[in-house]
Amino acid sequence: MKKLINALDDVVKEQLEGMAVAHPDLLKVNYEPKYVCRADAPVAGKVAVISGGGSGHEPMHGGFVGMGMLAGACPGEVFTSPTPDQMYECAKAVDGGAGVLMLVKNYTGDVLNFETAAELAHADGIKVQSILIDDDVAVKDSLYTAGRRGVGTTVLVEKIVGAAAEAGYDLDQCADLARKANMYGRSMGMAITSCTVPAAGKPTFDLPDNEIEIGIGIHGEPGQKRMPMASADEITTMMVNEIITDAAYTRVVREWDREEGTWIEKQLTDKPFAPGDEFIVFVNSMGGTPVAELYAVYRKVAQILEEKGYKIARNLIGPYITSLEMQGMSITLLKADEEILKLWDAPVNTPGLRWGV
Amino acid sequence: MKKLINALDDVVKEQLEGMAVAHPDLLKVNYEPKYVCRADAPVAGKVAVISGGGSGHEPMHGGFVGMGMLAGACPGEVFTSPTPDQMYECAKAVDGGAGVLMLVKNYTGDVLNFETAAELAHADGIKVQSILIDDDVAVKDSLYTAGRRGVGTTVLVEKIVGAAAEAGYDLDQCADLARKANMYGRSMGMAITSCTVPAAGKPTFDLPDNEIEIGIGIHGEPGQKRMPMASADEITTMMVNEIITDAAYTRVVREWDREEGTWIEKQLTDKPFAPGDEFIVFVNSMGGTPVAELYAVYRKVAQILEEKGYKIARNLIGPYITSLEMQGMSITLLKADEEILKLWDAPVNTPGLRWGV
Repeated sequence: MKKLINALDDVVKEQLEGMAVAHPDLLKVNYEPKYVCRADAPVAGKVAVISGGGSGHEPMHGGFVGMGMLAGACPGEVFTSPTPDQMYECAKAVDGGAGVLMLVKNYTGDVLNFETAAELAHADGIKVQSILIDDDVAVKDSLYTAGRRGVGTTVLVEKIVGAAAEAGYDLDQCADLARKANMYGRSMGMAITSCTVPAAGKPTFDLPDNEIEIGIGIHGEPGQKRMPMASADEITTMMVNEIITDAAYTRVVREWDREEGTWIEKQLTDKPFAPGDEFIVFVNSMGGTPVAELYAVYRKVAQILEEKGYKIARNLIGPYITSLEMQGMSITLLKADEEILKLWDAPVNTPGLRWGV
Repeated sequence: MKKLINALDDVVKEQLEGMAVAHPDLLKVNYEPKYVCRADAPVAGKVAVISGGGSGHEPMHGGFVGMGMLAGACPGEVFTSPTPDQMYECAKAVDGGAGVLMLVKNYTGDVLNFETAAELAHADGIKVQSILIDDDVAVKDSLYTAGRRGVGTTVLVEKIVGAAAEAGYDLDQCADLARKANMYGRSMGMAITSCTVPAAGKPTFDLPDNEIEIGIGIHGEPGQKRMPMASADEITTMMVNEIITDAAYTRVVREWDREEGTWIEKQLTDKPFAPGDEFIVFVNSMGGTPVAELYAVYRKVAQILEEKGYKIARNLIGPYITSLEMQGMSITLLKADEEILKLWDAPVNTPGLRWGV
C-alpha cells in the first residue's frame, strides 16, 4: 500500500491537523473527541447544521465547515461511523441557542449513532432535529444500509441548508428544507478501480482490468452490476436514464419529536422527475478520476437532459464526495426550485466550496 | 485502459465541450483551432494573460480562464504542446488593445511554439510579451526541457498576474511581475503511481508496488531518484528541505523585444530563500491523491517552515496542476511580498479557482 500517510492510527488526526493549520480563519478542530467546527462557533441565534460520517470522502464533510454551510462535522475513522460522543460534543460546541440540525447519510452506523447523540443533546436542553439523506437510486438495501444509501445529494443539501441557517431559517424550517431537498435529489455512482482503506492495506474489492462496477457505493459496497468497460457516453447514458426514470420512492424515516422527546416514524414518498424539471447537476469524482474526464461526462449529461426536456440551472463538477483514491464518478440530479437556487447561490466560505466571499 | 472517454481523437474536444456547456458565464471555447477564452473577451484596455500546454493537467490551464486570471488558454493533445496557430488565434481573440502576456512553462515544444505565435501576433500589430516559468528544483534538463521545468509556480503566477491585468497593470508591468513571481517560486513533485496517456493506452512508466519517484515531472518524466515508499513526513521533509536549501539559480531566457521586433536573451538569477521569508504554500495533488492526504503533507510543511523561521502567508491545497490520474503530490513555495499578496487575494472567477465573487 502506497499512501501519503504516517502511522495508521494517526491518519485522521493528522489530516485534521493539516486542516486546522491551513484554515484557522474558517474552522477549528477538536481532537478528543474528534470534530471540526466553524471558527466562530457557536453563532448566536442561528441554527447549526452538522453532519459527519466515516473519513475517506473528503472534502465532505470537514471541508464543508464554514460560513454558509456546515457549523460542524464529525469524522470517523476511514469508512467507519463516528461515535455518538463526537456528534454530541460537536452539537454542544456549535449550538448558538437556535438548535442543531443533523444531516445523516443513510448508513446504519451513522443513523444509530446520530440518534444517540440527538437524545443526549436533547437531554441537555439543546433543540435538535435530524434528517436522513438517502438518494442513491442504484440499490435498495446494501452492505451497510437499510433502504437507499446517502451519497451525492448530501453535498448539495449541506450547501442549501447551510445557507438557509445562515439566512436565519429556524430549526423546523431548516429541517423541512433538508427533507425536501433530499426528496428532490437522486444519484448514482460507478467505479473504475477500487480504493484501499489504510487500515486494511489492500484494495476493498477486486475489479478486473476490463471491468467497471455500476451503482457502486461510496465505501466500495457492491452496486448493481459489473460490466465490461464502456465508453463515457454509454456509461453516462445508462446512469442518467436510470436516475430520471426512477419511480417514486417511499422510505420510512425516524425523526425526533422535540415535544414528546421521542422518535416518530414518518413515511415519505418523493415524486419522480418529469420533463420541465430544472436541476442542479452534480458530476462528482470518486477521487482518482481527473476533472477533465468529468467534463466529458457532464457534456453528455447536458445533452441527454436537453433532449428529454429537462433544464440545468446550476452545476457542480469535481471531487466533492470521494472514496479515497477510487477512480469513478457519480451523477446527482437535484430538482431546483426558486428557494433552492437562491440558497445555492448564497455566499459560502469553506475549504471545499467557496463563492461570494 | 479504463478511462471516462469516448474515441481517442475526441478526448480533448469533448472535455472542452463539457467546459463550454458548464461555464458559459465564464468562458467560451473555439474548436478550430482549439482555445478557451473569457466569455467577455476581448476586454478593452486590459492586458490579456494567456497560457497553454499539453492537456492532462486540468484544471490548469483552461480551468483558470475567467475574470481575474487567464484571458485565454490553449490546450494541446494530452501531454503534447499546443500548436503556434492555437496560441496565435487565441492571442488575437483576447487582445483588447493593451497587449497579450504569454506565460510559458519551460518545455521545449511549448517554448518554441509560443515564440512562433508571439512573432505572428507581433506581425499583426499585437503587443506581446512572453515570460518563462521554470520553477522545478528537482532536475536541471529533463526529457522535454532544457533547464528547469515549469510546474506548480505556473498556477500561482497565473493567479497573481491575472489579478494584475485585471487591476490595470500595463504589459511591461505584467511581464515584470510574472518574471519576479517565477523567480520567487520553487517546486518539487513526487509520484506514487504512473498515469496513462489515452493515446498510449498503457502507463507512462513502471513503478514497483513498494517504490516512489522523487522529483517527478508533470508528464511522468524521470525525477531525481526512486526510493522505497516512505512515510508522508519523511517524503515531505525531504522535499521541503530541498526546496528551501536550493541555491541561487541562473537561467538564460529569451524575451521579446517589441521595439526591435526580435528575441533577446536575458540572464536571470534568483535568490535563495532565507529565514524570515513569507510564502504562499501550494500543496498540489498530481490527480489521484486525495485531498485528505494533502492535508497531512501540508501539516508537515507548516511544521518544518515554522521550525526554520519561515512564515506562511497563504495556502492552496488541492488538485490544480495534475498529471491525469497519477497519484503523488508536489509542493510549491512562492515568496510573497505585499504586492503579490494583494493580487493573490483579489477576486477570481474561474472554474478551477474562485473567490471574492
